[in-house]
Amino acid sequence: MQGNQAQRFPVAVLEQKVAAALRGAGASEASLAAAVRAMLHASLVGVDSHGVRLTEHYCTMLGGGRLNKNPQLKVDVRGPGSAMVNGDDGLGHYAAYKAVDVAIELALEAGVGAVGIEHSSHLGAAGAYALAGAERGFVTFATTNTDSMVALFDGAARFHGTNPLAFAAPVPGSKPWLLDMATSSIPMNRVLLHRSLGLELPAGVAADKDGRATTDPQAAEMLLPLGGAEYGYKGAALAGVATLFSALLTGTTLDADFIPMYGGPGGDISTPRNMGHFVLVIDPDKFAGRDLFGAMVTRYLASLRGAPVREGAERVMAPGDREWEEMARRQQDGVPVDPDTARFLGL
Amino acid sequence: MQGNQAQRFPVAVLEQKVAAALRGAGASEASLAAAVRAMLHASLVGVDSHGVRLTEHYCTMLGGGRLNKNPQLKVDVRGPGSAMVNGDDGLGHYAAYKAVDVAIELALEAGVGAVGIEHSSHLGAAGAYALAGAERGFVTFATTNTDSMVALFDGAARFHGTNPLAFAAPVPGSKPWLLDMATSSIPMNRVLLHRSLGLELPAGVAADKDGRATTDPQAAEMLLPLGGAEYGYKGAALAGVATLFSALLTGTTLDADFIPMYGGPGGDISTPRNMGHFVLVIDPDKFAGRDLFGAMVTRYLASLRGAPVREGAERVMAPGDREWEEMARRQQDGVPVDPDTARFLGL
Repeated sequence: MQGNQAQRFPVAVLEQKVAAALRGAGASEASLAAAVRAMLHASLVGVDSHGVRLTEHYCTMLGGGRLNKNPQLKVDVRGPGSAMVNGDDGLGHYAAYKAVDVAIELALEAGVGAVGIEHSSHLGAAGAYALAGAERGFVTFATTNTDSMVALFDGAARFHGTNPLAFAAPVPGSKPWLLDMATSSIPMNRVLLHRSLGLELPAGVAADKDGRATTDPQAAEMLLPLGGAEYGYKGAALAGVATLFSALLTGTTLDADFIPMYGGPGGDISTPRNMGHFVLVIDPDKFAGRDLFGAMVTRYLASLRGAPVREGAERVMAPGDREWEEMARRQQDGVPVDPDTARFLGL
Repeated sequence: MQGNQAQRFPVAVLEQKVAAALRGAGASEASLAAAVRAMLHASLVGVDSHGVRLTEHYCTMLGGGRLNKNPQLKVDVRGPGSAMVNGDDGLGHYAAYKAVDVAIELALEAGVGAVGIEHSSHLGAAGAYALAGAERGFVTFATTNTDSMVALFDGAARFHGTNPLAFAAPVPGSKPWLLDMATSSIPMNRVLLHRSLGLELPAGVAADKDGRATTDPQAAEMLLPLGGAEYGYKGAALAGVATLFSALLTGTTLDADFIPMYGGPGGDISTPRNMGHFVLVIDPDKFAGRDLFGAMVTRYLASLRGAPVREGAERVMAPGDREWEEMARRQQDGVPVDPDTARFLGL
């Protein structure tokens, strides 16, 4: 998302500026703290599409009334391992981090905590919540459905969102194993980037208005599911898994029924979107036990990172490795911020 | 897997013949009943690689001592939502179906049941267990790790198995939504089939001994993860999810450490493989409630099946649709059985 004009800023400065902007838009301290944390996670690991650039969007929605400035979260425990969190239509990050806390509390006793979230809104990067669980020592799964943007396999219209599946696992003495993947091959932002740069898209990742695969970013009207022209039924089904857990199980909004995220021309920015998410937390102590689990994760990752490398590649990486390296770089050199966002944040 | 020589046999005949073969090999009635059920599931939905053709393999392993003929399952409840099932080294199907039962029992109270399985063995198609939960009204996830056969992204050696992720959800008045996907693009059987037919493989699904992508089935030494040359890091990470839940959480065997499934020349068929699996069951009644959940699944599937179709395609299908159609066909016309298996079963 950031071009050459992007300037780098220290993390602490961004934290302060993003918080100030959300505070200025009226968000409560508790809800804005969660949003800052999630946006900074994304910005640090290099997922700029879900990073601090969303501050302006969230401020617009706080102003428009879609987002409740002072949400009062409600936790409804449904069983020893299950609960629903009602986000009261505030910033989605607030409800999602709360769901991780609730799930951990349940898992400590039940061994597993499954928490649905309703009356929420955009939560940023789903990986932030998988990570939050793993940082506290739990295997964690987080997912959400999102605005329709990806064709079905053999379909000719947007159906699912880019519906992420995020998993994380604690690793003794190290950053967690972390997977945060869209169930499309690429994000819509990549199409927009290629459009602005006049670059062809890779084959099998986007389609024109009739669902025909295209490499022309100008013609691309929708994304194709992971797996491409031949195996895209798998990616489409995985997008369905996100919808199953996030919307169907929680009784919230289907991908195609969302009021568009950005409202659009004449769009609605005052009605809450009733977005759903889902978080699952598992306590290794109720299974192999934390020691054996930790030893096995460590051995698994060592063997993965030490695997023979194919000609032309540099090395084999574990999920998260690229992100943790980017985080280290950005903690040292600062986080690149695009000019529009820098202006909005008063940087 | 079946060529033109495959003959079709009625389901009831196969059930009886497969049971008789396993009984002849010494398997207890309880353990063989589970294996028959799982193999017939696979054979009916068209997954012949995991269907009745495995009968001979299981009989060999019962005879060799790898499989315990009379396993005594042990259930160890670890918390209100968690348990471990010890398969006592018997047929994996027996332990896996038991885990579904245990998970459902836990979920009825806790809202969720997470059950790890240890000291198990090959369980056939993971979808059989996701389906078993969905048929009783629960959203179900089942996974296992398997023998190394798939390269890592940028890797040059077999690392993960084809590690399936299976999800199923109940649909009111209809067959369940069912996804049972390998995290490679194709199964190894496809390579063998193309090899015997002298047909090129699709691009990006297999690699030669140095990890170079190849379409030559003779040169193919390993599979590539879902996502192919550009996005295979997603498929590799999903294979890691299967290993995370099945092996790391349960403290069982890593993909690369399995004694080879078929033993091979001079191979070991007497030592148990300590294979792990994982089953998760969620009760919709503790979330949206069964009525709302059912109504939403129904609406979601209607909208999916009614989605606009791209030129050249016939229709859009939901996960499971192809399988249920194949099942209806095979229930009527019989199940095709390859000549070797037919001979073994005395058909």
